Amino acid sequence: MHRKLLAVAVLFAAAAVAAAQSKPRARDLGVPFDGTPGPLNAITDVAGVEVGHTTLIRGEGKLQVGAGPVRTGVTAILPRGHASSDPVFAAWFSLNGNGEMTGTTWVEESGFLEGPVMITNTHSVGVVRDAVVAWRVKQGQPADSEYWWSLPVVAETWDGYLNDINGFHVKPEHVFQALESARPGTVTEGNVGGGTGMVCHEFKGGIGTASRRLDAKAGGYTVGVLVQCNYGLRDQLRIAGVPVGREIRDHMVYTEETGSIIVVVATDAPLLPHQLKRLTRRASLGLARNGAISGNGSGDIFLAFSTANPGAARSTGLPSLSMVPNDQMGPLFAATVEATEEAVVNALVAAETMTGAGGHTVIALPHDRLRQALKKYNRLGK
Amino acid sequence: MHRKLLAVAVLFAAAAVAAAQSKPRARDLGVPFDGTPGPLNAITDVAGVEVGHTTLIRGEGKLQVGAGPVRTGVTAILPRGHASSDPVFAAWFSLNGNGEMTGTTWVEESGFLEGPVMITNTHSVGVVRDAVVAWRVKQGQPADSEYWWSLPVVAETWDGYLNDINGFHVKPEHVFQALESARPGTVTEGNVGGGTGMVCHEFKGGIGTASRRLDAKAGGYTVGVLVQCNYGLRDQLRIAGVPVGREIRDHMVYTEETGSIIVVVATDAPLLPHQLKRLTRRASLGLARNGAISGNGSGDIFLAFSTANPGAARSTGLPSLSMVPNDQMGPLFAATVEATEEAVVNALVAAETMTGAGGHTVIALPHDRLRQALKKYNRLGK
Amino acid sequence: MHRKLLAVAVLFAAAAVAAAQSKPRARDLGVPFDGTPGPLNAITDVAGVEVGHTTLIRGEGKLQVGAGPVRTGVTAILPRGHASSDPVFAAWFSLNGNGEMTGTTWVEESGFLEGPVMITNTHSVGVVRDAVVAWRVKQGQPADSEYWWSLPVVAETWDGYLNDINGFHVKPEHVFQALESARPGTVTEGNVGGGTGMVCHEFKGGIGTASRRLDAKAGGYTVGVLVQCNYGLRDQLRIAGVPVGREIRDHMVYTEETGSIIVVVATDAPLLPHQLKRLTRRASLGLARNGAISGNGSGDIFLAFSTANPGAARSTGLPSLSMVPNDQMGPLFAATVEATEEAVVNALVAAETMTGAGGHTVIALPHDRLRQALKKYNRLGK
Amino acid sequence: MHRKLLAVAVLFAAAAVAAAQSKPRARDLGVPFDGTPGPLNAITDVAGVEVGHTTLIRGEGKLQVGAGPVRTGVTAILPRGHASSDPVFAAWFSLNGNGEMTGTTWVEESGFLEGPVMITNTHSVGVVRDAVVAWRVKQGQPADSEYWWSLPVVAETWDGYLNDINGFHVKPEHVFQALESARPGTVTEGNVGGGTGMVCHEFKGGIGTASRRLDAKAGGYTVGVLVQCNYGLRDQLRIAGVPVGREIRDHMVYTEETGSIIVVVATDAPLLPHQLKRLTRRASLGLARNGAISGNGSGDIFLAFSTANPGAARSTGLPSLSMVPNDQMGPLFAATVEATEEAVVNALVAAETMTGAGGHTVIALPHDRLRQALKKYNRLGK
Repeated sequence: MHRKLLAVAVLFAAAAVAAAQSKPRARDLGVPFDGTPGPLNAITDVAGVEVGHTTLIRGEGKLQVGAGPVRTGVTAILPRGHASSDPVFAAWFSLNGNGEMTGTTWVEESGFLEGPVMITNTHSVGVVRDAVVAWRVKQGQPADSEYWWSLPVVAETWDGYLNDINGFHVKPEHVFQALESARPGTVTEGNVGGGTGMVCHEFKGGIGTASRRLDAKAGGYTVGVLVQCNYGLRDQLRIAGVPVGREIRDHMVYTEETGSIIVVVATDAPLLPHQLKRLTRRASLGLARNGAISGNGSGDIFLAFSTANPGAARSTGLPSLSMVPNDQMGPLFAATVEATEEAVVNALVAAETMTGAGGHTVIALPHDRLRQALKKYNRLGK
Repeated sequence: MHRKLLAVAVLFAAAAVAAAQSKPRARDLGVPFDGTPGPLNAITDVAGVEVGHTTLIRGEGKLQVGAGPVRTGVTAILPRGHASSDPVFAAWFSLNGNGEMTGTTWVEESGFLEGPVMITNTHSVGVVRDAVVAWRVKQGQPADSEYWWSLPVVAETWDGYLNDINGFHVKPEHVFQALESARPGTVTEGNVGGGTGMVCHEFKGGIGTASRRLDAKAGGYTVGVLVQCNYGLRDQLRIAGVPVGREIRDHMVYTEETGSIIVVVATDAPLLPHQLKRLTRRASLGLARNGAISGNGSGDIFLAFSTANPGAARSTGLPSLSMVPNDQMGPLFAATVEATEEAVVNALVAAETMTGAGGHTVIALPHDRLRQALKKYNRLGK
Repeated sequence: MHRKLLAVAVLFAAAAVAAAQSKPRARDLGVPFDGTPGPLNAITDVAGVEVGHTTLIRGEGKLQVGAGPVRTGVTAILPRGHASSDPVFAAWFSLNGNGEMTGTTWVEESGFLEGPVMITNTHSVGVVRDAVVAWRVKQGQPADSEYWWSLPVVAETWDGYLNDINGFHVKPEHVFQALESARPGTVTEGNVGGGTGMVCHEFKGGIGTASRRLDAKAGGYTVGVLVQCNYGLRDQLRIAGVPVGREIRDHMVYTEETGSIIVVVATDAPLLPHQLKRLTRRASLGLARNGAISGNGSGDIFLAFSTANPGAARSTGLPSLSMVPNDQMGPLFAATVEATEEAVVNALVAAETMTGAGGHTVIALPHDRLRQALKKYNRLGK
Repeated sequence: MHRKLLAVAVLFAAAAVAAAQSKPRARDLGVPFDGTPGPLNAITDVAGVEVGHTTLIRGEGKLQVGAGPVRTGVTAILPRGHASSDPVFAAWFSLNGNGEMTGTTWVEESGFLEGPVMITNTHSVGVVRDAVVAWRVKQGQPADSEYWWSLPVVAETWDGYLNDINGFHVKPEHVFQALESARPGTVTEGNVGGGTGMVCHEFKGGIGTASRRLDAKAGGYTVGVLVQCNYGLRDQLRIAGVPVGREIRDHMVYTEETGSIIVVVATDAPLLPHQLKRLTRRASLGLARNGAISGNGSGDIFLAFSTANPGAARSTGLPSLSMVPNDQMGPLFAATVEATEEAVVNALVAAETMTGAGGHTVIALPHDRLRQALKKYNRLGK
């Protein structure tokens, strides 16, 4: 049965990709942002990074635990793509820890992210985690007796407003599919992968991404961000400094903040783990620009990794490394703030109105009214 | 098929209990320890705490991934037993984070442990985690739309030397069984539950427990510790200050430290979360007394909780709390150090020689030679 | 000689108070902020909190190390005023740790702030720290043999652009004066106390304060914030979402961020230490609203304390406490974000153009041009 | 007047050095330790590290605040000696934070220790801190307008049992002297420098040091440790696993633990900051071997630095670094545990009976009775 579901998911994902390519992004609507994005304005602007989604959308109407409706999925981020399982330097930070990101204890201790970063719904973290181990085992690496890749990084946000989260609809094959379908290039945004059933500032949320490319003087590095956004009340939403949430006060769904946001920051700048931790804290600042206060119910957990310094994780010899001086990190901080800010707005712009569990409907951020609000406050870029 | 396995596991667990009751513990062998234990010298001396194990032992000989041999299990610790799902104040600490303990980000943020503490093998953390959520859902609490208990605490150590860890033999029903079989009273030690396939100082390790009861002047509180121990090289082992590992140098199995230890500290002393964090760091000191250096491959992760202050986690009103003054915490620190030290030795004394995956055999700490070593160094208590 | 200096400082401070009372604050200029401030819109809206400044302004022209010009001072915040030395629950957070806040290791460990919070310049942290101990000793409390109040909290930002920081002009008597002059009521802002020589977004910075009062349904609590702000580049400055820094591009002084900000959050809400830590992280979000990226050279260090739960620090018995449920903390988070945001803008609005060491001049944020910018973006409140 | 005091201190220090050279150390008394020390068995076995002490001993009899008796001092550790002010990678950890170590926020953020590590008494941290800045300023490096070295690392333990701590007898010139007298080679132990008035396990404590040299296969690295030890009750003291404190129960001075220990770990192994943090946690394990429980009143704060990777802190370009693989860190962990353990015992063995403030006397650990205790438990090495 899962096979059939999987087929549906694959078809859906393919359709979503096609749709995505013609959809406007925040910049296209005239939202002004600071800084210069990379060519894709996506986390995949960081060379090597690959992203895959499995999207599960099935059923309608009344919630029947185990039967649906299903509005969920899995997103996989491979730091060095399929080409290499060489670990990357990494660090993490929790702005508000009402959430889960497994594997962080080893990231903190070792300074390395040893496998992919997976994002899914709250109740599927376990199945995704073990499936990552199983996927690794299937590939015969490392030897059965070793424990490498045994501490996968899996994060989540809660999609129970639209999804039958207690039905546990994510299965190992969905995890394998997300991993296997990961690829460089354009990243589908909105109602896809782990972000399928998410809600953000009481608009439809989900996956968003953005990037910044530093100028040559600042090292020419790229910083890419991917978010799974599911946080915030309507009133709190600011875009480009404009109180957009207060301009669009219909179709509100929550009385208190219950959501979360996962932020994954990738860069090719050679940063050591303690420097990557500095980047993760800047994700907070990007969220704040959009009005986040990081409510009690929010699992706002961030991870950053660097694809530089290949071979750093080898177990013998003396790996040779390079690092960006602390004194040169300012532009990387700014890039992280800006790309996080834009990734969230991209998610809001890309996500489409969805009706899910129990007939709950969450509307997309209406593009025209966003533009009206920006115009009202003299911030419409074009 | 799992049902049948489960039946085997249940039978085994019952047999183990019977065996345990007649087995000597470290004190019975004359190992001297500081402090006064509670009546059971177990974590269950802390009123309300209940412990359950599911033990999976099946198959012999050559390792065939997916077929066994199986030497693993699940241990469940319910802070307030089956009587109450009221969260408890909690905190955690990682001495060396080559391991996983899910749910810690929310423990750190909220100050609460909202459900049980589960311990299993490294590759089964996910299945155990989701099964804890599912168990909660089955019980109808809280309402389907809520997210309480959605961030379970599940820890692990790696049993791949004796167990077909890549066969993923722990299933949801084993988790349910561990939870449902939890009870107060004597705690079975050694080759049981999550500790079934563990190795400690190259002797057979597993589950151990101990407790300390403070005198009335110090508040009369109880501190109980349960460990799943799987760390250490032979040479490092000291017991009561005696270099026992260097006195018993046969049947050594490792060339480098690859194991881990999970320490769970329970107390009825009214400690706030930041005070419980102070206790967790003292677990390090207990391990050091036994010679631990906390090697790179070790996941030495500790959690402490207090059963005092019921109702602290309610979501409205102003919960009324009490706290032990910092100035009075010394005896609680000593109790944590001592009970951790003893729990590890209890695990070593209780565990029995086991042959598992690939025909690997790990011997039990020989009781007579332990006594000889203690005697040689004038430390034999009786 | 210091006595004379002190007299000058006292006179200056008195004059500044008079000036302050007639000066407009950010709200008076029409800057729109969220939330409802307390009656003073100051940290002293939290009952018991008292603030004192010693301001040292002396000399002009060429920098001669040891001779001036002097543009520096000390600010003292007494959590319970002069009425009580009873410690308060507290916590801290470093967004970017290029700075110093002494005493935080004990705050983190104990959960208590045992004395005042002092803020000065970077090179005077030591003298202020020891002087706090000496002040305590002079008062005969606690007994000479005790170590209470021996770990003072002293924070700093760097005023070397306007002040002869290497001249070490802060002396113990200035510290005593700041402590002794602390009082409830209006808090002087701008070029006073520790903030005397500070620069923020390349405008004159210094001390700012603001508060929020929650409605009765949310508990009726007050959150007060005091900042010593010295961070940021001009281009980064946003006020109420408006890119004010880009609208006022003259008189810029830096090419890279070298400053810092200290944020002190006070509340009467009964929060435990781990909950106060949650507040400190929200200070980051307030800064981000004003455009902060927290550059490498920035010491962005925050401390929060609660005046509730008197007697919590007593050394015997079982103090009885209350706590705000985590589920009710959202309004406190919002209040912290909002008050931090406003305190910075208040500092910018209050600070006056200053010429200091080496003839460096830093201009005040011009009020008229601020209003123009707000108007341009349709955000002028009145 | 200080000049005269200083002269006394210098004379005393010279005498102490002469005495030290003929004094036995713990190994000389037959205390067995694991591992192989470097040639000096001192932190100065790490090439480049230099240590200087200023020892202040003056007056006798009744405590008169400000007049003495004085039993205190300052110890300076220069990571690269006088030859270079190039910062070193560093990290810190607090086992129990009832103490102060300034500068740690920047160590944590930047990954660097930019100047010396200073250790003194609790009430002199401030004067030492500012004097380090002043010393740097006097040397003309860096330029007056820069803030480098403005966040000194100064740690403390409390010597108020023997010293007129509230008399603030440490002056800037004592700090300069400790810095200027720092040199490689033998390190004086016991009642010297910051350790002059310290008490450890109710014996006379103070400064101790030890080192370990790894074999070539493990990289041939050196780990050196210096402690200022002032913690512990008599009963808790274990040496080489032997309950020495319970064997020598006379001349006890405390009823509860009020002391502290500062541990500084130096190595020439190329470790990154997050790896150095791993070392700092191992200092805890070394202390535990000697019986430490890290009481509430204890400021047990540890710092580790690596002299490898010169030039890592430069502010432009891309510094080229090397690192020890995590998988190779085990021997460094063991070395840290062992050297910490031995440094404490060395301090106890070197310190001599002292009578100080108020006529308080603290006896030296009697060497003969230590040997008797070791012999009783069959642990006397020779």
